[in-house]
Amino acid sequence: MEHMDKLVELSYALDTFYFLISGAFVMWMAAGFAMLEAGLVRAKNTTEILTKNVALFAIACTMYMLVGYNFMYPVEAVNSVWPGMGFLLGEEHTASAVLNSKGETYYSKMADFFFQVVFVATAMSIVSGAVAERMKLWAFLAFSVVMTGFIYPIQGYWKWGAGFLDQLGFLDFAGSGVVHLCGATAALAGVLLLGARQGKYGPNGEIHPIPGCNMPLATLGMFILWMGWFGFNGGSELKISDIGEANAVAMVFVNTNAAAAGGVISALLTAHILFGKADLSMSLNGALAGLVAITAEPLTPTPFLACIIGVIAGILVVFSIIGLDKLKIDDPVGAISVHGVVGVWGLLAVCISNPDATMVAQLTGIATIFSFVFVTSIITWYVIKLVMGIRVTEEEEYQGVDYSECGMEAYPEFTNSGK
Amino acid sequence: MEHMDKLVELSYALDTFYFLISGAFVMWMAAGFAMLEAGLVRAKNTTEILTKNVALFAIACTMYMLVGYNFMYPVEAVNSVWPGMGFLLGEEHTASAVLNSKGETYYSKMADFFFQVVFVATAMSIVSGAVAERMKLWAFLAFSVVMTGFIYPIQGYWKWGAGFLDQLGFLDFAGSGVVHLCGATAALAGVLLLGARQGKYGPNGEIHPIPGCNMPLATLGMFILWMGWFGFNGGSELKISDIGEANAVAMVFVNTNAAAAGGVISALLTAHILFGKADLSMSLNGALAGLVAITAEPLTPTPFLACIIGVIAGILVVFSIIGLDKLKIDDPVGAISVHGVVGVWGLLAVCISNPDATMVAQLTGIATIFSFVFVTSIITWYVIKLVMGIRVTEEEEYQGVDYSECGMEAYPEFTNSGK
Amino acid sequence: MEHMDKLVELSYALDTFYFLISGAFVMWMAAGFAMLEAGLVRAKNTTEILTKNVALFAIACTMYMLVGYNFMYPVEAVNSVWPGMGFLLGEEHTASAVLNSKGETYYSKMADFFFQVVFVATAMSIVSGAVAERMKLWAFLAFSVVMTGFIYPIQGYWKWGAGFLDQLGFLDFAGSGVVHLCGATAALAGVLLLGARQGKYGPNGEIHPIPGCNMPLATLGMFILWMGWFGFNGGSELKISDIGEANAVAMVFVNTNAAAAGGVISALLTAHILFGKADLSMSLNGALAGLVAITAEPLTPTPFLACIIGVIAGILVVFSIIGLDKLKIDDPVGAISVHGVVGVWGLLAVCISNPDATMVAQLTGIATIFSFVFVTSIITWYVIKLVMGIRVTEEEEYQGVDYSECGMEAYPEFTNSGK
Repeated sequence: MEHMDKLVELSYALDTFYFLISGAFVMWMAAGFAMLEAGLVRAKNTTEILTKNVALFAIACTMYMLVGYNFMYPVEAVNSVWPGMGFLLGEEHTASAVLNSKGETYYSKMADFFFQVVFVATAMSIVSGAVAERMKLWAFLAFSVVMTGFIYPIQGYWKWGAGFLDQLGFLDFAGSGVVHLCGATAALAGVLLLGARQGKYGPNGEIHPIPGCNMPLATLGMFILWMGWFGFNGGSELKISDIGEANAVAMVFVNTNAAAAGGVISALLTAHILFGKADLSMSLNGALAGLVAITAEPLTPTPFLACIIGVIAGILVVFSIIGLDKLKIDDPVGAISVHGVVGVWGLLAVCISNPDATMVAQLTGIATIFSFVFVTSIITWYVIKLVMGIRVTEEEEYQGVDYSECGMEAYPEFTNSGK
Repeated sequence: MEHMDKLVELSYALDTFYFLISGAFVMWMAAGFAMLEAGLVRAKNTTEILTKNVALFAIACTMYMLVGYNFMYPVEAVNSVWPGMGFLLGEEHTASAVLNSKGETYYSKMADFFFQVVFVATAMSIVSGAVAERMKLWAFLAFSVVMTGFIYPIQGYWKWGAGFLDQLGFLDFAGSGVVHLCGATAALAGVLLLGARQGKYGPNGEIHPIPGCNMPLATLGMFILWMGWFGFNGGSELKISDIGEANAVAMVFVNTNAAAAGGVISALLTAHILFGKADLSMSLNGALAGLVAITAEPLTPTPFLACIIGVIAGILVVFSIIGLDKLKIDDPVGAISVHGVVGVWGLLAVCISNPDATMVAQLTGIATIFSFVFVTSIITWYVIKLVMGIRVTEEEEYQGVDYSECGMEAYPEFTNSGK
Repeated sequence: MEHMDKLVELSYALDTFYFLISGAFVMWMAAGFAMLEAGLVRAKNTTEILTKNVALFAIACTMYMLVGYNFMYPVEAVNSVWPGMGFLLGEEHTASAVLNSKGETYYSKMADFFFQVVFVATAMSIVSGAVAERMKLWAFLAFSVVMTGFIYPIQGYWKWGAGFLDQLGFLDFAGSGVVHLCGATAALAGVLLLGARQGKYGPNGEIHPIPGCNMPLATLGMFILWMGWFGFNGGSELKISDIGEANAVAMVFVNTNAAAAGGVISALLTAHILFGKADLSMSLNGALAGLVAITAEPLTPTPFLACIIGVIAGILVVFSIIGLDKLKIDDPVGAISVHGVVGVWGLLAVCISNPDATMVAQLTGIATIFSFVFVTSIITWYVIKLVMGIRVTEEEEYQGVDYSECGMEAYPEFTNSGK
């Protein structure tokens, strides 16, 4: 008896530790988004995008603690569509409750919250890149309060809180839909209301590339995200403490890596065929596309299939970025393509390897997340626009939002070009 | 019997692994301080601050191995004030000793050393930022030998080596006092002897801001520190292998994160109220202030209270940075405010949530650490000043210490301003 | 019985988790090499070196999955020199097989693959720095296909796949030879065929230093590598789940850290004696040299001896870098010295602390790895040279390879110098 209890305790400790480390890796992705976005904007808009990334992470952590976690994982759900509400985080499992459950309760509730809270921040980080270089900082932060406290948790509840999408058989292992499509959809709504950056699209349909100012930073951001994704997908197995679960987590790691590698290779080759050059920014987006695509199902494919799913994602992201530009949807970092378009691909690709997936359920999930997030986001953006405006003035945009929003240059000694 | 032994072995392995990973996270904080400080100084002083950060980490690891660890955790303490001395690191626990202890000895001694050694480096890293841009490199390294071999370990022994502060009931979970106040106090002593940078304070009381040259780097540094802090505080629980301990570590992660988030939000808002802008550098210091404040007691507060402790820290750090500037105490990165002033707040805040804390013991601990470190540091700095000088010449400072101390520019192709 | 099975399961889970986290740390080293190399080249060649680092990682992961892993760890080896071939990755261990083995099979096969695959990328990353600033991007990527699919796995098999070097008693714990000397040798072969950068060596034997453009980035890269090395060496113990193994992993962490610290201190002092300055780039190379040197045997030395092994490595690397320059072997980042010359020192130093090592076996291993990798690499480079050329034109080199190879500047707004 004593041995069995000690086994349950050790097992609980290992699963909790695995959760916490996975969460720390996902938290680290906040730095990845910050560096990626700071590298891909112009110098004059860098301080502002950094401030947004730091502040949105703080807001996400706080709002999800105050209301979001209980929306998404309600103790008592009123029904399967609208979750009930608890208050703050509830009680940790007691040792006796865990022991009595014979290991059914197998990890700390606080560890679960920690893992979930850093996911919210990821969804929100996706938005900041797409609206870069022309959105008002405080308007963005106002949106992030609504997004992380309400929009994300409600749609998250439908799948991960055992809501109606889950009951419908919609499959989304680590969040190609719940996190990435959700973030990209909110971003799309914002970009449509906000319009393109000055000078991005010429009057005769020309598209002017606006190069990022710091490619090593963007590359660093991509590597941070790649690393963090092992926590993102690896931790989403939720358990590691027996042979089958340990094997599953290992498979998730291998497949996550293989898909990212496939995405790099195909995006590099696709861009080379199209442009005749080895395009670094497309390679970075290829890696991220591979990662987003495998996120919906990193467990059931073989590593070779995972690589192929990444390869397709890498091709898709290049054409999507080109396509959105033709539609004059201006997304400075390619976030809508990487997380939205490829997120949809990932959700559909679940059907290739997972026999439990149905195309109907996947499409229902995609349609539900997209329409809910799009409608609530565009309403939210619109209200913010009415109340305080969402776009800086032309003059401020020309000068750079660092000056108008933050009063501080990111590189005061380096820039050779004027504002 | 065999099962019980195997359980003890697994438990020992898990706790050791938890310690080692926590230590690796804390080691990573060295990169955080290096990036934060390199981002907040001017380009002409960047190579030197990087060199200091790399060298101080190496010196800390070596000195603590040679003498510090045994000062701080003596096998046989002579008494509670002055520790005895061993030699180097002593013996690892044998398997039979661990098994005979029935799990009382529950993790590797070498893992303990690894965890402790990276803490020393953290304390020393705090100093380098405050004395940036005008201190001689070799004088700084000489100080770091004394600090990491003697000053830090002796005061650390008083609390964590079961010395008199520990017996008095002074509570300091992961080192708001032992690490952060200690580092900040040594920095303050150095800054007082060193004086302000040229041009920082005008003859009529004007304060001239000297902006950092690379804000993405500073932001990266902050994110690295935030991530590393999960090891710093999370590892300081010292054990994870049963339900109660696993829950405790999870709570520490959640509270550490909540306090940092609170610090960002309040510092951003406070700076906005004071200056009318979203001040990135204050947001970064707000995050670090939240982290320092919760370090003294990240276990007993609820997450909501942890957030509030961080909120207060974020407000405090903004006013402290402004206040020190009025006193003409020139600290280029705000280290004395973040680690010293807020460290004191963290130590006092223990009394809010931990019924075992007393205001008297906390104040005694603060006073002891401050006065011991201040007196020994100022003597050390003074002796170094007499022997080799601590400040570069006016001409060298004007040119930048990179040239005089390191013979190498950090950004030879980028800087648009003259030296 | 049930208890024993659950113990085996938990143990398997812990070892698998330890492997996966170690692998994630090693994957992170890819970012370290990318940042180190991007910091040490000139601005005009930065995008290209970043693209190489991203692409080589993807190629390494894919080639090793397709063919390399089975070359290196064949299920059925034909003989001890030439491995047999399986197809892709084979089958994961089933729970019943693990339980039947009574814990002989103690971690996931996929976790093993993940750990191994990131090692291959490390070996390849070493090459990219040495051939920087003048090699054609696609030629480099073609070489990386051969290297990661064939050259690395075959020599790796000789030691780690239980091939003839292993049977001979050649000792190489985590790969001072198999990874570092291998990478450095392939780099040397490339550099010899490629020649020096324009302007590096004057007609009268002058050596013109070409400073790196971004020292904070190089420093960040070094810190990333230092952190990642805890996974590299720590994971190479292969097991952590009992007291002896946990102690061993802890010792490896401590020794890895001590050697790096020793390398920093001695390289800093050696450079100070030679040049009169605190040379940051030599300090960075000193840290890496300490890490490479201890990699062959991080377990048996005492921490003090590990520090001394690092000290010698730090001195050696400074003289090696100077020496290679005298031989007009142009290695922009010092990779051949850090990983090759010091790798040899590390392999010889095994004999100091490990009684099982013999100088004959170590020298045989060094000679075998060097000659096999050198011959196969130079043939490969030569074939690539015939087919597509390996060096950009003089004009392209003068303009910077970013423009010719990638069509994208790394810092379009910063550089003050012309191309």
